[in-house]
Amino acid sequence: MSGEVRRPGEFELIGRFLRPLADDPAAFGLTDDAASFTPPPGHDLVLTKDMVAAGIHFFADDPPASIARKALRVNLSDLAAKGAEPIGYLLGLALPSDWTVEWMEAFSAALGEDQARYGIALLGGDTVRAPGGLTLSITAIGKVPTGRMVRRSGARAGDLLVVTGTIGDAALGLRLRLGTIAPPAEGADHLLDRYLHPQPRTVLAAAIGRHAHAALDISDGLMGDLAHMTRASGLSAEIDATSVPLSAAARELVRRDDTALTSVLTGGDDYEILASVPPARFDAFQDEAREANIPLTVIGRIVDGMDAPRAIDGAGRPISMGRVSHDHF
Amino acid sequence: MSGEVRRPGEFELIGRFLRPLADDPAAFGLTDDAASFTPPPGHDLVLTKDMVAAGIHFFADDPPASIARKALRVNLSDLAAKGAEPIGYLLGLALPSDWTVEWMEAFSAALGEDQARYGIALLGGDTVRAPGGLTLSITAIGKVPTGRMVRRSGARAGDLLVVTGTIGDAALGLRLRLGTIAPPAEGADHLLDRYLHPQPRTVLAAAIGRHAHAALDISDGLMGDLAHMTRASGLSAEIDATSVPLSAAARELVRRDDTALTSVLTGGDDYEILASVPPARFDAFQDEAREANIPLTVIGRIVDGMDAPRAIDGAGRPISMGRVSHDHF
Repeated sequence: MSGEVRRPGEFELIGRFLRPLADDPAAFGLTDDAASFTPPPGHDLVLTKDMVAAGIHFFADDPPASIARKALRVNLSDLAAKGAEPIGYLLGLALPSDWTVEWMEAFSAALGEDQARYGIALLGGDTVRAPGGLTLSITAIGKVPTGRMVRRSGARAGDLLVVTGTIGDAALGLRLRLGTIAPPAEGADHLLDRYLHPQPRTVLAAAIGRHAHAALDISDGLMGDLAHMTRASGLSAEIDATSVPLSAAARELVRRDDTALTSVLTGGDDYEILASVPPARFDAFQDEAREANIPLTVIGRIVDGMDAPRAIDGAGRPISMGRVSHDHF
Repeated sequence: MSGEVRRPGEFELIGRFLRPLADDPAAFGLTDDAASFTPPPGHDLVLTKDMVAAGIHFFADDPPASIARKALRVNLSDLAAKGAEPIGYLLGLALPSDWTVEWMEAFSAALGEDQARYGIALLGGDTVRAPGGLTLSITAIGKVPTGRMVRRSGARAGDLLVVTGTIGDAALGLRLRLGTIAPPAEGADHLLDRYLHPQPRTVLAAAIGRHAHAALDISDGLMGDLAHMTRASGLSAEIDATSVPLSAAARELVRRDDTALTSVLTGGDDYEILASVPPARFDAFQDEAREANIPLTVIGRIVDGMDAPRAIDGAGRPISMGRVSHDHF
């Protein structure tokens, strides 16, 4: 079932583009079939795996550096939400047969830059031909103090719901790409960039581990991911839509277009953290976030009940939304 | 970029087909974004990741149970070759949009059977829509005594080269599927089954760890994988082609068809183990393999030098082969 290979073969591709990224002893220079390691004393490993596919999570003609960053960072975002500091990753790369050397150069250079940025190494993986389209499957490995992985299910009634950064930019950036919303007067670039380049909140991981009862990263949309948390915790939640932090560009679109608020509340791809934090810990969490230069905003609280989380508007009325979750599937 | 979802959504799919497979506490019932665990005292974790794609590693219309087994077992085979006992796996599943409930039922049931067979659990993963074709990316996790992962690079001059089982069946089975070789009088089913259903040598993992200087599993073909081992070890090798163990069906094809021996020596997908074993350890290795009911055969030895490994025929003449490695890429 092998087709004509017009490009360098698998082993040359690995040697030329990927082996230089595998500078951790655990990776054995990618000359073996597996990576071997053990967590540092007093730590558990945390493993997460997010796949991204052309036409679903990114556009096939996105810059290769952007695809590399997104594939890696959505996994680092999961680790951060779990309170885990990243160690490294395994890369599964299913490449269409028309890949070019230039594409791989840009792709692997971006991985190398992000490895330096987040202090991680490539530890192994696999490269195969993708008959259907570029698909990336990354398994990221992090560490947490033993038994301290932050779960989705730990929220308690009375906890404050806290988000990092601003919400909805990526969903609005995607709508700009798709032409389903008119661009803002200013800041369209910011929205487009937020869709392309998630910013995992890695520097906040340890603080999340110390202060949050529960946390996850917002990949399927604020309301949908909040519902994941409340369902796992056996509770409900109420958020004040007017308190959801927006960028200037998102604020302009929400003012102008009735559908923009729904995108903000239900669109995916923000990769900000949603954390459930006991009120007594909020100030300490806020201080650490400020030191890391990451804005935190309280948007609501966890309440008793089994209903889906509710969003209310400035007048206290419930906001009705269509589907509450962005579906990558 | 979400298309029309005509089937159950991602969360229903996970809940119905995959959550029942995640019965290990480390998996948190797949209700979280990550798995958390630590190796048992005195052990390292071993992580490996093999991707398989429709049209490359299997046929899109193969039975879903066969696809599930192949995707999982090629990873368990890597662990066994490293001397690692399997613990669990993360499943990345990129599903075409025309998947059916019946397909997922058969696929997940086969995963469940293999989990029981190999004593492992589903620990996490991701499910996405595959615009191009079914792609599976499994990360398998195993354990070895600390520092004892069996490398490719540990071979020493004078070591015996030992293989498990029979070689070449899967490559000949694939040729039967493709119609590029006429079927044998008997045993065509055996060859076809060997292509579809790798048998990872998991029960031999601990013995490999105790007795082999180096090992890998034969996925790219005997000569190609042997070259990986000798290159990583800075050595060369000589094998006697007449001693390569063949099934009765493969023996018939080799007798009858001049191209069959090349398929045996260079075709992929056997997932048998190739181990480099010091002569003084061979008897003990053989005893343990016999107890596990796995045949071992000495097919050659590691020699000094930097040349590519050589295969000689019964008269001591070198056998020339075209490409020496099956390319899944």
